[in-house]
Amino acid sequence: MTTRDECLALDAADTLAPLREEFSLNDGEIYLDGNSLGPVSKAVSTRVSDVIERQWAKGLVRSWNDASWMDLPTRLGDRIAPLIGAKPGEVLVADTLTILLAKLIGAALEQRTNRDVVLTDAVNFHSDLYIVEAMAKRAGRPITVKAINRDDLASELSADVALVMLTHVDFRSGEMLDLAGITDQVHRAGSLMLWDFAHSAGAVPLDVDGANVDFAAGCGYKYLNGGPGSPAFLYVRSAWQNFLQNPLPGWLGHARPFDFEPTFVAADGIRSFITSSPSIVALAALDGALDVFDSVSMSDLRTKSLQLTDLFLELVEARLPGVFDVVTPREHEKRGSHVALAHPDAYGIIQALIARRVVGDFRAPDLARFGFTPLYLRFVDVYDAVEILANVLETGAHRDPTFATRNPVT
Amino acid sequence: MTTRDECLALDAADTLAPLREEFSLNDGEIYLDGNSLGPVSKAVSTRVSDVIERQWAKGLVRSWNDASWMDLPTRLGDRIAPLIGAKPGEVLVADTLTILLAKLIGAALEQRTNRDVVLTDAVNFHSDLYIVEAMAKRAGRPITVKAINRDDLASELSADVALVMLTHVDFRSGEMLDLAGITDQVHRAGSLMLWDFAHSAGAVPLDVDGANVDFAAGCGYKYLNGGPGSPAFLYVRSAWQNFLQNPLPGWLGHARPFDFEPTFVAADGIRSFITSSPSIVALAALDGALDVFDSVSMSDLRTKSLQLTDLFLELVEARLPGVFDVVTPREHEKRGSHVALAHPDAYGIIQALIARRVVGDFRAPDLARFGFTPLYLRFVDVYDAVEILANVLETGAHRDPTFATRNPVT
Repeated sequence: MTTRDECLALDAADTLAPLREEFSLNDGEIYLDGNSLGPVSKAVSTRVSDVIERQWAKGLVRSWNDASWMDLPTRLGDRIAPLIGAKPGEVLVADTLTILLAKLIGAALEQRTNRDVVLTDAVNFHSDLYIVEAMAKRAGRPITVKAINRDDLASELSADVALVMLTHVDFRSGEMLDLAGITDQVHRAGSLMLWDFAHSAGAVPLDVDGANVDFAAGCGYKYLNGGPGSPAFLYVRSAWQNFLQNPLPGWLGHARPFDFEPTFVAADGIRSFITSSPSIVALAALDGALDVFDSVSMSDLRTKSLQLTDLFLELVEARLPGVFDVVTPREHEKRGSHVALAHPDAYGIIQALIARRVVGDFRAPDLARFGFTPLYLRFVDVYDAVEILANVLETGAHRDPTFATRNPVT
Repeated sequence: MTTRDECLALDAADTLAPLREEFSLNDGEIYLDGNSLGPVSKAVSTRVSDVIERQWAKGLVRSWNDASWMDLPTRLGDRIAPLIGAKPGEVLVADTLTILLAKLIGAALEQRTNRDVVLTDAVNFHSDLYIVEAMAKRAGRPITVKAINRDDLASELSADVALVMLTHVDFRSGEMLDLAGITDQVHRAGSLMLWDFAHSAGAVPLDVDGANVDFAAGCGYKYLNGGPGSPAFLYVRSAWQNFLQNPLPGWLGHARPFDFEPTFVAADGIRSFITSSPSIVALAALDGALDVFDSVSMSDLRTKSLQLTDLFLELVEARLPGVFDVVTPREHEKRGSHVALAHPDAYGIIQALIARRVVGDFRAPDLARFGFTPLYLRFVDVYDAVEILANVLETGAHRDPTFATRNPVT
């Protein structure tokens, strides 16, 4: 079993270790929930203050031009593009993830009008399931949404399938799907592929260009650390951009927004998918949060992420053999950046850990979920977290009766 | 003609004058564009810093519960409710105005399934026109959108009209429509009424309850001063809340968001119209901005607003007789809180004014538009603005050739 001293040595040799200094973290707390809400980086505070105190307070309405607020949704998109393997002009930041999925589902269904089935994963994030049903109802023709077992995709694909919508890293298990392989499989059936990157962007290397992904959307507030409810991002492959119509058009997506034309004429490129401007203050927070990614490659982050999750799995099994059902795949190519452990007392375990300043989260019915973000986590944090987890289980602290009632979020 | 000294005396007697201290305004600048983007109030900076430095940085994911982030969309809705005459639980803050209109149009069309016409104003804000067309296309049955001359509403209403969507204060002319009278007229035809309050909320008293308004939505970044791209608000009359379905459902509008159920079950009340969380940082900015309304009545604001626009009209006509076509109605009951002056050189006039630190805006093809926000504008500001306007016209400064090319925003 890896020792604490060995973890300290790994940290001392870690070339990513200085990035931790960019974040405001609580002393003595081990934060393993960056997959739910990333922490604040110092550049966030600086950027938001600059927008409020200078661009807004001093520049006022002029800042739409002078501070390029008009271009912020595409400028931030271009900052996210390299993190997912997209080209400039293929990514836009706006709205929330569910609204962006609505836009992409609506647009995609108009591209396969001779097909009437959408496939998605029965255990997809629930909001994805709700919005695909809702947009299918409004497609202008009868559409059947089939929520399948994703392992049955090959047998479910047919000439009736217009669109396949999957989440790349499962929010419960942390299983990562084969981006290129599945996209290719879907294309061979003549269907379109929409990926949800909520638990992927900033966590694992993505190559949407190489994988020929049609459409994708992802989250600003998890591994990208853009803040609670941060605007989301949307990817539309450049080859599609002249064919797709935003089903929720708005004035900022118009070719000439300030000509106030009564008929919608789409702006060129990704911009037509803007409806109206997301909060500039919120975009500024995400802009600051993206700074940390400028000095690091997703490949280096991935290497450390796997080292962290490998270490966690090793230590959990060494210290607590047989206690948990490890839901997250062992194979590196199938693992995202969090680990889920099933246990009947998972809720109490998470609460007891939080009380001991190790923050993970609970996902019903029985998962204790731990996110490992290589930007700010140390190997010694993993070691200490497992020691505290072992102490909780050994002392029965997780059976504290005050944990009997679940609170809504953690 | 009112003198500058008389304006100073009006300011000295103005009980609203101290509110100006709540805002960060540029020294020596007269800001007449709060109808496009309201200025920063000091409470905004304080609230945003608290959310970033304490709630997010220290509380992290726990703040969804501990800082009541989960309830912020409805809590802010309840703060806006009294400004529009709504009851607690009838207003929600989320998304952007166009997205909220999409939700209300979609939901409303499902309530009048035996009717297939939507009436709107041919000179409505263009984004409203785009989204009503888009949602009509996705209603699940053929819907005709008729963009009418709003003065012809009586003759256009018929048993075919499902929904009427109008903007309460015209963004160009500043004309204010008769909220109660039109709503009643629409109801007598058996149609539903959706109001856009972009240029009304925080600017003029509204009584949605007394006027029996069905649905409304409005803007956070104009007279409510919530910041650029601030989340918008939506009103659904309580009597409708158990019947309407959000056409863009999401997990935070679910009755039990953390049970991760595969089928959407709407939360009770207004909450079902949330899709997913807007930026908490953006909501914090709006929350701070709303503080100033706690200490003032909309009725007192309205009195001063009319005094300011009356004074502006009086001085413009005295100093520059016959120079402008005054587009904004003289009658108080038909006037919002901005004044629009038509002039062939309106673009150059606005640019010359901005160069002289009087900020208004231009709306194509020929309108110079001036917003009068009683929260922070003084009578002497109106006087000085008109003097500077007269100086621009008298010196021909507005014909500066550098103003030949319009920039996109102002």
